[in-house]
Amino acid sequence: MRILGIDPGLRTMGWGVIESNGSRLSHIANGHCTSGTGELAERLLSLHEQLTGVVARYQPTEAAIEQTFVNKDGAGTLKLGQARGVALLTLAQAGIPIGEYAPNKVKKTVVGAGHAAKEQVLYMVKLQLPGCNPVGADAADALAIAMCHAHYGGKRTLELREVKV
Amino acid sequence: MRILGIDPGLRTMGWGVIESNGSRLSHIANGHCTSGTGELAERLLSLHEQLTGVVARYQPTEAAIEQTFVNKDGAGTLKLGQARGVALLTLAQAGIPIGEYAPNKVKKTVVGAGHAAKEQVLYMVKLQLPGCNPVGADAADALAIAMCHAHYGGKRTLELREVKV
Repeated sequence: MRILGIDPGLRTMGWGVIESNGSRLSHIANGHCTSGTGELAERLLSLHEQLTGVVARYQPTEAAIEQTFVNKDGAGTLKLGQARGVALLTLAQAGIPIGEYAPNKVKKTVVGAGHAAKEQVLYMVKLQLPGCNPVGADAADALAIAMCHAHYGGKRTLELREVKV
Repeated sequence: MRILGIDPGLRTMGWGVIESNGSRLSHIANGHCTSGTGELAERLLSLHEQLTGVVARYQPTEAAIEQTFVNKDGAGTLKLGQARGVALLTLAQAGIPIGEYAPNKVKKTVVGAGHAAKEQVLYMVKLQLPGCNPVGADAADALAIAMCHAHYGGKRTLELREVKV
């Protein structure tokens, strides 16, 4: 299956596409959508168009997105929520099933430690996806989220499909 | 000008359309979009489709949305943010300029008091938009937001247009 991982954010939204074949993972592409500094609605429109383009180009069959860490910064949570809503909408419009993973679960799965540093995530992403060179920390995180989904979500999706058959 | 007011929410998103001709306001339509209890992404998709339908049907030339009150309920802020992001995206996709107003400003404009109760808002909306019967509190709030925009936004938009000419 082909998995699109998304690290949601209003200013920068990281994305990464991997192919998962059993336990073998390979890197397809990564990047980030940026939204500039204009009006909020225009920025959300720009993110939607860029992400729709990524979906059209790489045709993922599954998607995974980071569960948002809700803290006391209400204004930050609201901004992130608005960008996250647009990302989820884009995936739903393409009919792609979505897995959601907490940041600690992603790190635990990819690095082996729930409180791993960004550098450790980048190192392990590069090690497990030979030839991949993430364009930035957000793209590396997105690839890690996709890898986490390959580990957990694939199995879950398969079970769901078997139940449905 | 024709104004679409939106009271954003994930479960229920109120909307109201009014026509503003100088200081004369008239009611066109009101309603609410609901998103059921399914998967988050599906609910956002449903809100987007319903709101896109409202825009297509009533062809507003301006829009107004409530500024979200950020409180300590992070999970609530995130949910609201996701729905609000989808509403803003829908308006941006239709190329409609958007005004944002704090709840207190809306109440102050429509009722005359920043801390007015919901019943007072409903009463004044009905009084100032003869013949209108809001389907619920969210729709009444959305009409009030549109009325607030007629008061402030119209002038601002006109000034912006004059500067551009």
